[in-house]
Amino acid sequence: MNSGIPPGPPADRTPTWQGRAVLVTGGLGFIGSNLARRLCDLGAEVTVLDSLMPQYGGLRFNLEGYTDRLRINLSDLRDCSSLEVLLEGKEVIFNLAGQTSHLDSMHDPETDLAINVTAQLRLLETCRRAAPQARLIYASTRQLYGRPLQLPVDESHPIDPVDVNGINKLSAEMYHFLYAKVYDLSACVLRLTNTIGPRMRIRDARQTFVGIWVRQLLEGRPIEVWGGEQLRDFNDVEDVVDAMLLAAEQSDLPLVPYNLGSSEVISLADLARLMIALHGSGDLVITPYPEERKKIDIGDYYSCFDRFHAASGWQPQRSLAASLQRTLAYYGEHIAHYL
Amino acid sequence: MNSGIPPGPPADRTPTWQGRAVLVTGGLGFIGSNLARRLCDLGAEVTVLDSLMPQYGGLRFNLEGYTDRLRINLSDLRDCSSLEVLLEGKEVIFNLAGQTSHLDSMHDPETDLAINVTAQLRLLETCRRAAPQARLIYASTRQLYGRPLQLPVDESHPIDPVDVNGINKLSAEMYHFLYAKVYDLSACVLRLTNTIGPRMRIRDARQTFVGIWVRQLLEGRPIEVWGGEQLRDFNDVEDVVDAMLLAAEQSDLPLVPYNLGSSEVISLADLARLMIALHGSGDLVITPYPEERKKIDIGDYYSCFDRFHAASGWQPQRSLAASLQRTLAYYGEHIAHYL
Repeated sequence: MNSGIPPGPPADRTPTWQGRAVLVTGGLGFIGSNLARRLCDLGAEVTVLDSLMPQYGGLRFNLEGYTDRLRINLSDLRDCSSLEVLLEGKEVIFNLAGQTSHLDSMHDPETDLAINVTAQLRLLETCRRAAPQARLIYASTRQLYGRPLQLPVDESHPIDPVDVNGINKLSAEMYHFLYAKVYDLSACVLRLTNTIGPRMRIRDARQTFVGIWVRQLLEGRPIEVWGGEQLRDFNDVEDVVDAMLLAAEQSDLPLVPYNLGSSEVISLADLARLMIALHGSGDLVITPYPEERKKIDIGDYYSCFDRFHAASGWQPQRSLAASLQRTLAYYGEHIAHYL
Repeated sequence: MNSGIPPGPPADRTPTWQGRAVLVTGGLGFIGSNLARRLCDLGAEVTVLDSLMPQYGGLRFNLEGYTDRLRINLSDLRDCSSLEVLLEGKEVIFNLAGQTSHLDSMHDPETDLAINVTAQLRLLETCRRAAPQARLIYASTRQLYGRPLQLPVDESHPIDPVDVNGINKLSAEMYHFLYAKVYDLSACVLRLTNTIGPRMRIRDARQTFVGIWVRQLLEGRPIEVWGGEQLRDFNDVEDVVDAMLLAAEQSDLPLVPYNLGSSEVISLADLARLMIALHGSGDLVITPYPEERKKIDIGDYYSCFDRFHAASGWQPQRSLAASLQRTLAYYGEHIAHYL
């Protein structure tokens, strides 16, 4: 559905990351750690902030091999009295900290609110005082669209979240836009679709169901697919990292939300079959969608990312198969750290 | 702009309020107290919950003459451990508690968030456990539309709040819709425009600038008008009370937001002149819009209330002049309690 789009402007990587002071909130998590590693490789001075709350995706091992090249600050954005000091002098803040589980947000909505909204507001308030020149990149989610009325979903699609998490992520987005407009902060909001790759949480489905599938596959158990017909698109985490770097580098991007997404769309059952084929063995079991999740399920979903492509030149470079292959290889080697 | 609309369904007041257990959050405030008084007059068993926080609109005097006919519970929704007991057995919950000042929401966004979002989430969570059968009427605001792209503003207008208060009220609205859909709560969301009448706050402009104008007029000072060209619509508080009763009585209203509003639209300068004429004397001074408020000003605004009219039969019964007359008379008599 993104075929035939004209190429965007050339992605001139003129701004160098060498020596630039950046902060990655949630930097021990899945996307945050992949981003922090890339930034280190590009020569940036990286500070990582993470709460390492056990239910979330943060894991010290995610920065294995990089711990002497960056600074890790363990703290909770909610009560981080040192946030002001941590923000001072930062040129870019990659704001990835958050609670990602839709189901948890229904079981414990106040915690989702505290982490995804109150902490974000505190970060923005601190930012406008301590780092008013910084560029802020906020990792939002497709979840705030709710059940798609048409596909692919572009940014003009109505906003109608089906869970507390979607409502709270929308609030945090709106805070970013508001603070950018009222206080002249520089901000960019990316709405991520399903992201997969090394360092994602595989202990449970809190971050992505693909994580638990990887675990089932590698442990020789059948992949448990709920429903199976639902269509989804997936981005490789390295493509998401590319998008975040582009969003940071191009500070003149119009102040609107941008979908990420992929042109490769696949049903959940076919995704499981593809993973089994890539792994060389495995089974899947299709079970009915659990009642509790049905009410917050969004059905088919895939994104139109034309807006961000046109604005920044970004488009996914990694195929789904290549991404899954790389992911399976990573967990084949490192699974013990993720259980 | 609401002329020529067909009459809505007859507003059959078949459900009687006699003996019905109702809770009014923010019931010592402006609209809450007028609603609580009416409910008492209709024979309902009224419990009022209010925090009486000094910057807000709550005032014991607002229920003068009614204190032996209803129950007043002073507590803060945010840490009301007794909320469950207060909700038990209630048939209708009029949910009016909130922080209303746009400017305060920018100076102290976390307090606005705590009161307008966290407390609302706690109320809904408690409600689904302690009063799952209750009908919930939530007082939302036109503020979440932001600067109108076209006038009058109907419910299909894009949502683009210009301040923290607007973002937070939107969240609370969305929570109401979500809890109604997921947990089968019965809810109705009304988006109020400017409401005026007896018992509004006149000490400052935190609730409505008309309050401070009333005070300036009655104290013989010139009315200070910022700008003056901006168009607005106003509802008499009794019309808003009518709307809330209708919304409570008609539990089969579709689960969508409903604007209130008025067909009478007036510029702020003309409003000041009308107040002076009704009062028989007075002056106005037009000053430039304060810089601090300019960034969160919404320009011209008036609502289309066709949707709620068609669904419930509601339409405003009180003219702006009659409403101002009644308001000035009230404060002429009781101003000492409101300073």
